[in-house]
Amino acid sequence: MSEYNLNFVDGLIPVVVQDYKSGDVLTLAYMNKEALDLSLKTGYAHYYSRSKNRIRMKGEASGNTQKIIEILPDCENNSLLLLVDQKGPACHTGNKTCFYRKLGEPQHIKEKIDYSLDFILDLENI
Amino acid sequence: MSEYNLNFVDGLIPVVVQDYKSGDVLTLAYMNKEALDLSLKTGYAHYYSRSKNRIRMKGEASGNTQKIIEILPDCENNSLLLLVDQKGPACHTGNKTCFYRKLGEPQHIKEKIDYSLDFILDLENI
Repeated sequence: MSEYNLNFVDGLIPVVVQDYKSGDVLTLAYMNKEALDLSLKTGYAHYYSRSKNRIRMKGEASGNTQKIIEILPDCENNSLLLLVDQKGPACHTGNKTCFYRKLGEPQHIKEKIDYSLDFILDLENI
Repeated sequence: MSEYNLNFVDGLIPVVVQDYKSGDVLTLAYMNKEALDLSLKTGYAHYYSRSKNRIRMKGEASGNTQKIIEILPDCENNSLLLLVDQKGPACHTGNKTCFYRKLGEPQHIKEKIDYSLDFILDLENI
């Protein structure tokens, strides 16, 4: 299915993920051919997790899925830009995007975001 | 200088480059420590060219430089987001961004962009 002459290096291609509404860059992820095929087939972003060594649908555990609006390869087919409709925060830290701090700032800071939904989810888990 | 606990893999870290005004994702590039140091020192984006095996200041030949507005590492220090003030088109094809076509579209298409300035520059070079 994914016969687009894309350049997979060690089986992977980097994927820049951008919120199509806000324009926020959400994260940099990686796909292998199977993850790309699953993304094209389902319309939802699937990535190859290098730490877990397996394909994951974004949001499969958190519910913070990414519906794909558009896929754009770069001029040399070395990377993809994924425009998505992001449900909830994109970052596992709870931040809206993975790029939530400036270079040199500590890793544990959190954006001032609306935690109302998190609060409800916490209550449900009691 | 670049002691930010960033994760360089094989000496490189991927850098998502975004136009700070338009929000357009311009390109995905790579930096080694020296390129990051040069970027921090000069305020202009320097990348490591994997095809040329050397550091290049973006726009050193074309004049299409990128003044750095902000540098943001991701939540895991595996990549950087560079917000830049882009001069001219970012892509070597003459397109505004490297992501100018949808998946499956031919590589040689060009965006409908305003070439008036290019035309004036061409005249000046006669």
